[in-house]
Amino acid sequence: MYRADKDLAFMLQYENVAWFEDGVVRVLDRRIYPQRVEFVTCRTHQELAQAITDMVTQSAGPYTAVPMGMALAAHECRDKSREEQLSYLRDAANTIANARPTTTKRMMLQCECCIEAAQRALDAGENTAQAIVQYCIDANNKRYDRIGTIAEYLVDMFPDGGTVMTHCFAETIVGMMLRECRKRGKTIRLFCPETRPYFQGARLTATVCRDMGFDVTVISDNMAAFVMEREGVDVFTTAADAICCDGHVVNKVGTFQNAIVAKYMKIPYFVTGAPDQGHPTVDTVHIEMRDGDFTLQAMGVRTAAEGVKGYYPAFDVTPPHLVSGVVTDLGIYSPYDLHRYFKDGNIGSHNLVV
Amino acid sequence: MYRADKDLAFMLQYENVAWFEDGVVRVLDRRIYPQRVEFVTCRTHQELAQAITDMVTQSAGPYTAVPMGMALAAHECRDKSREEQLSYLRDAANTIANARPTTTKRMMLQCECCIEAAQRALDAGENTAQAIVQYCIDANNKRYDRIGTIAEYLVDMFPDGGTVMTHCFAETIVGMMLRECRKRGKTIRLFCPETRPYFQGARLTATVCRDMGFDVTVISDNMAAFVMEREGVDVFTTAADAICCDGHVVNKVGTFQNAIVAKYMKIPYFVTGAPDQGHPTVDTVHIEMRDGDFTLQAMGVRTAAEGVKGYYPAFDVTPPHLVSGVVTDLGIYSPYDLHRYFKDGNIGSHNLVV
Repeated sequence: MYRADKDLAFMLQYENVAWFEDGVVRVLDRRIYPQRVEFVTCRTHQELAQAITDMVTQSAGPYTAVPMGMALAAHECRDKSREEQLSYLRDAANTIANARPTTTKRMMLQCECCIEAAQRALDAGENTAQAIVQYCIDANNKRYDRIGTIAEYLVDMFPDGGTVMTHCFAETIVGMMLRECRKRGKTIRLFCPETRPYFQGARLTATVCRDMGFDVTVISDNMAAFVMEREGVDVFTTAADAICCDGHVVNKVGTFQNAIVAKYMKIPYFVTGAPDQGHPTVDTVHIEMRDGDFTLQAMGVRTAAEGVKGYYPAFDVTPPHLVSGVVTDLGIYSPYDLHRYFKDGNIGSHNLVV
Repeated sequence: MYRADKDLAFMLQYENVAWFEDGVVRVLDRRIYPQRVEFVTCRTHQELAQAITDMVTQSAGPYTAVPMGMALAAHECRDKSREEQLSYLRDAANTIANARPTTTKRMMLQCECCIEAAQRALDAGENTAQAIVQYCIDANNKRYDRIGTIAEYLVDMFPDGGTVMTHCFAETIVGMMLRECRKRGKTIRLFCPETRPYFQGARLTATVCRDMGFDVTVISDNMAAFVMEREGVDVFTTAADAICCDGHVVNKVGTFQNAIVAKYMKIPYFVTGAPDQGHPTVDTVHIEMRDGDFTLQAMGVRTAAEGVKGYYPAFDVTPPHLVSGVVTDLGIYSPYDLHRYFKDGNIGSHNLVV
């Protein structure tokens, strides 16, 4: 059992639990969470890659699952020669990093770090699987430190007794910001749009808020304007799939229209994360169109008649004039001034999934 | 069989079919439509009232169901004396009109017209049930004439080859506007937000569009801004539960934010119907808050964890500065100039459910 770090255990509760122990990785099945808390058990790195492909774990979840898959691979080849082990790990890296095409590059970077950790362990005559798990703990803790700092800046923006609206599941930052509120004795209540078609807001965000003891209300996505007006929402906040260096925010579809409505209501919109040097401007952003049929069902039940078309853009793009501030680990930046973030000496979002 | 009128038959297809024949009323079960086309059979006026209470028929549907329930009552008491029959009909009117509290007043007005029709039939020695059904046909045809005129003005606003976004189910006007498009050879494609939590857009509007041979795409409610921007929406249009005489529009929750987004996108928003003298200003509007738990499920499947609150405002209010025009049977009015509608000699929306 490697959950030595208390903070890490806390955060894993609010991410997708994927943990290596004795040659087995158990992955929280977020497809059915929170209705049922069940785990998919992976006994080989191929099974782990398949679980990632099958969306058992999502959002930031794969970035814990990937090293755990590499730990599995290390465990599988532990009795081979040094060179055979490294070759086996490189093959495993290929299998795992290709489990989801849109994030292959980032997952391959992680796999390479795992291989380096294994090499060091081999040199020192230590257990390679354990070394990879330790790499994951260290990397996550560094990430959590940065997200914890973001949470401090974000919670500064919440009035005590205030009302906060979210969108989709902002992953780690949700738990972090609520922990920060609790630390300061700041009371907030939350409204979470359910975020169709996958209900991340209803299923994930709301559950974290409830688990942490906050007053949380789920609304359907068409109620944002009503709630902002009638319930006195003070702040609208989301994470981002990417924050372009020109201040455009790429995030779950619906963010854009909520930001338009927030602007209309004079409610500030704060996005958390760090600018992404991979997107110097919005021009490099490609919006993935997923299978439109997914929008024609809800929780597995068909909603529309046959012959009706579906539509499913995974993300939308919010322009900088709708963004009140980009809340980073170095402070809150104007969306028009994000290059200063890099001048301030930080490394950007490549290693910062929030 | 009383479906003598071809237009009426056409329109009934797109409303809730509720029809009296040989002492039985069959009501299309819109709770499960379009997944299944099934009818609830009512053999007494009490069963019909219960069907209305149970939401078997919705929106404009009850305004056909109510006279059919009165026809049932007339059939039930047909062998009694004249005075006993009228007394029986008055009791039945009470039962039926109280089937749904928020529309009792309007449904009682209908019942009174049915009783008058029965009285005339008794005087003439004719069949009372058939007279009530004929009253319903005549009243609906008058209504359809007016809505047909609204459709003509509305379709004037659609560019040929244009893209139209709806919200919720605009009932009769949907079929009417598409028929008008077809009549003119005007091609449009439609995007229908699904309209959570009840999916009227996905289930009803989209099905009508498909049945009438139009290109129709269902989107989730959080995709409106994305679609307006990327798909070049030309017109956003809805019906209304009430159009206040000061230009505020009361309609299914989500209309307000779609109108905000349409304004942001420079897309006109046209509301169809007629100003309601029952609401001289928005101050008389009370937004019904329904059971919030309904928002915590989708198609009967629970979405959120226990301990999470729900929220369900039935309607929202769109202010006149977001409304480009009120499309009535007398033409298109500025939302700031609705009193002219009454000066123009019309009777308002009391008899105009669109």
